[in-house]
Amino acid sequence: MVGGGQGAYIGNIHRLASRLDGQWQLVAGAFDVDPARGRDFAIAQGLDPARSYGTYQELIAGEAAREDPVDAVAICTPNFTHYPIAKALIEAGFEVICEKPLTATLADAVALEALARESGRFVGVTYTYSGYPLVHEARVRIARGEIGDVRTVQVEYPLEWMSAPIEKAGNQQAAWRTDPLKNGRGGSIGDIGTHAYHLAGFVTGLKLESLTADLATFVEGRALDDNAHVLLRYQGGARGLLWSSQVAIGNSNGVRLRVFGSKGSFQWYQEQPNELIYTPLDGRVQVIKRGSADLSEDAAARTRTPPGHPEGYLEAFANLYLGFAEAIRARREGREPGPAGRNLPLAYDGLKGVAFVEAVVDSAEAEDQPWITPVAV
Amino acid sequence: MVGGGQGAYIGNIHRLASRLDGQWQLVAGAFDVDPARGRDFAIAQGLDPARSYGTYQELIAGEAAREDPVDAVAICTPNFTHYPIAKALIEAGFEVICEKPLTATLADAVALEALARESGRFVGVTYTYSGYPLVHEARVRIARGEIGDVRTVQVEYPLEWMSAPIEKAGNQQAAWRTDPLKNGRGGSIGDIGTHAYHLAGFVTGLKLESLTADLATFVEGRALDDNAHVLLRYQGGARGLLWSSQVAIGNSNGVRLRVFGSKGSFQWYQEQPNELIYTPLDGRVQVIKRGSADLSEDAAARTRTPPGHPEGYLEAFANLYLGFAEAIRARREGREPGPAGRNLPLAYDGLKGVAFVEAVVDSAEAEDQPWITPVAV
Amino acid sequence: MVGGGQGAYIGNIHRLASRLDGQWQLVAGAFDVDPARGRDFAIAQGLDPARSYGTYQELIAGEAAREDPVDAVAICTPNFTHYPIAKALIEAGFEVICEKPLTATLADAVALEALARESGRFVGVTYTYSGYPLVHEARVRIARGEIGDVRTVQVEYPLEWMSAPIEKAGNQQAAWRTDPLKNGRGGSIGDIGTHAYHLAGFVTGLKLESLTADLATFVEGRALDDNAHVLLRYQGGARGLLWSSQVAIGNSNGVRLRVFGSKGSFQWYQEQPNELIYTPLDGRVQVIKRGSADLSEDAAARTRTPPGHPEGYLEAFANLYLGFAEAIRARREGREPGPAGRNLPLAYDGLKGVAFVEAVVDSAEAEDQPWITPVAV
Amino acid sequence: MVGGGQGAYIGNIHRLASRLDGQWQLVAGAFDVDPARGRDFAIAQGLDPARSYGTYQELIAGEAAREDPVDAVAICTPNFTHYPIAKALIEAGFEVICEKPLTATLADAVALEALARESGRFVGVTYTYSGYPLVHEARVRIARGEIGDVRTVQVEYPLEWMSAPIEKAGNQQAAWRTDPLKNGRGGSIGDIGTHAYHLAGFVTGLKLESLTADLATFVEGRALDDNAHVLLRYQGGARGLLWSSQVAIGNSNGVRLRVFGSKGSFQWYQEQPNELIYTPLDGRVQVIKRGSADLSEDAAARTRTPPGHPEGYLEAFANLYLGFAEAIRARREGREPGPAGRNLPLAYDGLKGVAFVEAVVDSAEAEDQPWITPVAV
Repeated sequence: MVGGGQGAYIGNIHRLASRLDGQWQLVAGAFDVDPARGRDFAIAQGLDPARSYGTYQELIAGEAAREDPVDAVAICTPNFTHYPIAKALIEAGFEVICEKPLTATLADAVALEALARESGRFVGVTYTYSGYPLVHEARVRIARGEIGDVRTVQVEYPLEWMSAPIEKAGNQQAAWRTDPLKNGRGGSIGDIGTHAYHLAGFVTGLKLESLTADLATFVEGRALDDNAHVLLRYQGGARGLLWSSQVAIGNSNGVRLRVFGSKGSFQWYQEQPNELIYTPLDGRVQVIKRGSADLSEDAAARTRTPPGHPEGYLEAFANLYLGFAEAIRARREGREPGPAGRNLPLAYDGLKGVAFVEAVVDSAEAEDQPWITPVAV
Repeated sequence: MVGGGQGAYIGNIHRLASRLDGQWQLVAGAFDVDPARGRDFAIAQGLDPARSYGTYQELIAGEAAREDPVDAVAICTPNFTHYPIAKALIEAGFEVICEKPLTATLADAVALEALARESGRFVGVTYTYSGYPLVHEARVRIARGEIGDVRTVQVEYPLEWMSAPIEKAGNQQAAWRTDPLKNGRGGSIGDIGTHAYHLAGFVTGLKLESLTADLATFVEGRALDDNAHVLLRYQGGARGLLWSSQVAIGNSNGVRLRVFGSKGSFQWYQEQPNELIYTPLDGRVQVIKRGSADLSEDAAARTRTPPGHPEGYLEAFANLYLGFAEAIRARREGREPGPAGRNLPLAYDGLKGVAFVEAVVDSAEAEDQPWITPVAV
Repeated sequence: MVGGGQGAYIGNIHRLASRLDGQWQLVAGAFDVDPARGRDFAIAQGLDPARSYGTYQELIAGEAAREDPVDAVAICTPNFTHYPIAKALIEAGFEVICEKPLTATLADAVALEALARESGRFVGVTYTYSGYPLVHEARVRIARGEIGDVRTVQVEYPLEWMSAPIEKAGNQQAAWRTDPLKNGRGGSIGDIGTHAYHLAGFVTGLKLESLTADLATFVEGRALDDNAHVLLRYQGGARGLLWSSQVAIGNSNGVRLRVFGSKGSFQWYQEQPNELIYTPLDGRVQVIKRGSADLSEDAAARTRTPPGHPEGYLEAFANLYLGFAEAIRARREGREPGPAGRNLPLAYDGLKGVAFVEAVVDSAEAEDQPWITPVAV
Repeated sequence: MVGGGQGAYIGNIHRLASRLDGQWQLVAGAFDVDPARGRDFAIAQGLDPARSYGTYQELIAGEAAREDPVDAVAICTPNFTHYPIAKALIEAGFEVICEKPLTATLADAVALEALARESGRFVGVTYTYSGYPLVHEARVRIARGEIGDVRTVQVEYPLEWMSAPIEKAGNQQAAWRTDPLKNGRGGSIGDIGTHAYHLAGFVTGLKLESLTADLATFVEGRALDDNAHVLLRYQGGARGLLWSSQVAIGNSNGVRLRVFGSKGSFQWYQEQPNELIYTPLDGRVQVIKRGSADLSEDAAARTRTPPGHPEGYLEAFANLYLGFAEAIRARREGREPGPAGRNLPLAYDGLKGVAFVEAVVDSAEAEDQPWITPVAV
């Protein structure tokens, strides 16, 4: 792991998630810009101090020199550092698991996706919400045609925690998210809108044709948007509506997806992730429960407990790690991956996310918000 | 009543709603284009056959000649007839209660609103959702500043009943709603998007600055939009996002309003109208129940039963009739109306709705969907 | 109407409910123990002062002497007066609509039920919750065998409003409900437990075999129970569990019924009365919505608006009045009543309710709470 | 670990849960009655084959002989084997983590609890639902007096999966649960009613005074109850109502607890475990979210992610393992345990559960279901 040391939120999530299924073991890291602090952290995590490195370059050199080097490295550093670290890792032959967004600039994303593709290394991107089993279930059923042609997608990701100017009150998590140098050109749209965009495309299989956007910054003095409204047109005629917000009081982590087709609809809400609401045309609203016997193998491969025993965010994140392990093993063993290792968020998904944010900001900053097509869809 | 005879949906709702509080009595009508059928209907309703008229002109003449003419006339006819009927009624000195939209064209709406204003006659427009007591409660609390400055408004009105081409299978209600001559230029946006737009403006008190819209027609062969996505910018900087749909499978009558301010938020869902969800900044999600002791006089004047005894759509509609009665009485008695007679949907609200639809369609039909300001906001 | 004058809660509900469908007209009453106040009230209600009577005896005499006497009289007086008033009305040939409980004592209930049966007069009892359309829908479907043999019934009626000793702080509604002379031997079990008991029997069609009960009084100084736990055994082997409470903070009017059979289950919650939750064996949880096209004629006859347009308590109450009108008309016309006039709560249901309370209190007061069979089931 | 090999449901849960926080490592086991199968399983789990034992006796002997023996042993075998295994482990000086019920008979439970107490060994019992952070939060707040004196507790645990005679169709999980020799005298009451009973006592801190019970067996040919209704009287006057069912169609794992006090109430539902519903007297219903800043240290020590990132069953189970680790460490280090290591389900809780089932069955089997006091409360 690079980054993710003492006090890091997402690094801890990666560790919890990777541990759950016993498929990964954390054995080495460059956890902190302060090597001593990183080393203390490594020891507290039970690691061999010899494998606690001061920088990612040292980690690469040290691990490459071992007989039992790490299989993969998780990148949990600020966005603008993703590209150089990932590049160096890939060039040294390591597999990569990268936090989203893939990179801080579109140019970096294009370059990294190309490098990943050409090198054959694995590059997974942690679009967490695509780890939920019922999200896969919806994807499978839509692909099967169960709701007919998709007509419109309503996706939203509202948060409340940045409703006041907490970045000026010492909140570090808010500080880097409102700093264009660290977060990129998009505020809420870059931090969470990308999750919503990925989720909508992942579940429906639709590719974007164009978008128009209206960004707003409601908290005074904030440099980036904290609320984004985006109209979507997909190839083939489907439409979409995307809302992301960091100032939506009352919403803890309100990812919600609704997909309406010609024969039915699905609705999924991340805060109650064990239920997928399904309504067929002229039929009744009904509840598809995670863990039910009639679910797809894609969903079944990502569930550990029977219906009624709630699984949540950590299990969804663990499903990404489970899938990454399966995908890497399958490639090394020269076989097709099993269901857990299919339909994973990879480098191209990361590139699409960065291209989406670029297009949103371009549209919003232009006169009269033109409809724009992202460079990768 | 004009229109609303045998088999008419909304005419029956008007009768139920007007009867509930004992403030109105139906005594005369021109219920049907077929006078004989209208007369049969009038008799079945227990009316004096002498007051069953063949046309609205006859109704006006007949009632004007009586010593005890009707106080007001409810217009429940197709949209394009609203204007001539209302004009004749006002000119004859009657008060008017008109179904929405106020008129089928913008020119008619402008003319009717001016006539109403100049004549001093009462012209109420049945924007039903503004009859709900907790909608008033939200309005009062926002006006008081309880959620600070409004930042963004998410309002939606999804329906499912027109998901298939039922207008070609003999459904009359769907047939006129998909006919531009009868419904005007807007499909879903005209039929239900206007309700959503009125609700958002009513609750927040905000006036629109401009909008851009993306209309879609998903059911093949349909002449008007059946799905509308609209971005809103309000004067003062607040934003909004409006969705109306007639093809959203799973939604019976899913009016939902969410208003986010700098200090809190309100959420209200028409299918569970006895609860208003309130969250203060840094506080807990909580439920304000209709009928609670701490509600405003505006809400209290529109409620009949204690918390836990659900009131619904007919009670909301009845609140409009209750308010219209109070407003008319107060004007005749030269006094201020009580709380039930305040904050009612009137001719100017009707005009705003027609102007909104006009702007939405103009934006959607133009190249690149420009931002447009409606002629009345 | 007898009783239900100025300030009376339930009298007002009767008036609203009887007015909604235009089947009843309030034309006479003995509204108040104070004749002058009753007369003022009658005038405010728009009645002919000549038909405002000082006592129920005067009402009977006055109306019996008219050519156009009232068809029926609603009794909205304290419980202990129901019997003499109903008796006098029946003996004078009037139809009766009586608030629950039917009477304050078992002896009175037995006598009144016999009198009703022998006289042929209509005696309706306002068990409100059996007026809801989806309650009828559940009844019809269970009778059809859709959930197989009923196994267990969980029914509850929790309220919060008497959680503190408000009867000592001037609350009149609480005062008479905690007075054994006025409310009878049961506190919460008599006031609301009877509703729950009726609802369970109405929906399932089961007859009680025996019960055991544990009553508690949590508010100090209160003379009657404010919380009741009752175990039920029905004839044929089904079981039940009934809870009523006046001290259940957080519950406004939380009537909830769950019926579990060998092939499926139904769940209904009065505060969201437009949804009936149905789960078939090995199937999905699904939502049956009021107003749907596939509902029974029993439910359809009790609904006025399409799905998504919430109906509530007043509409349920109005359905009783609608049914009473239909039942009386049908009998007078010598025909079978239509669906609205069938399956109504009548005198025998009233007797069963009183017998239930008697059995509950007998069990609770005895040593070791024996299982007891009510005298009418 | 003893038991919990290939195909075992609960053994897998123990492994997932123990792994999450990195506090436990599975290094040895006697996983299967078939030693070869157990050994294969151990290897598949990545264990040293030398530490895969054929029997628990061999495990004890083998581990006791090592320099680095296991710290604790989890017992995941059928109920009637818990006692001999736990006894041998304790006598050999190991710490024990035991599945519920503690034992299959009351005599065994009494003996085991005494042995645990006298030996000073740690004996944790996996009452899973007491691992949820918001269950701890409710406990803390009730102990602080936030809802005043507890008046009544409504607790239920309905399941649907045994609604048909699946034990005769080859379902092994159902087979042993319906076999008195393996499950003990209680069916649903022993399998899940004990969870409900523990939860109610854990949260309220109340001790039982007496109970009466009505057991039913609805599926033909089943030897044990599959539905239980129990009335509870707690010391000090509070009452309770407990329902457990294995035939409640529509319920996946519907543990629900409601506690009503003189000043407020709490409500918690296991299938939406990230919300605790709180209502103060004369106040609003409000939502306490897991992960909120204002929660107790007891809850905070059992949560890993912020509000809106759902945690569930595995995290609750992991909290038990986290607590067991902390409790054992603290004792060994001679210090007070931190908050995660306090308020854990221990041997006495296990004994109480067995005594409860004994009392329920005794009451149900006796004439007229007497009120009975369990031998441990």
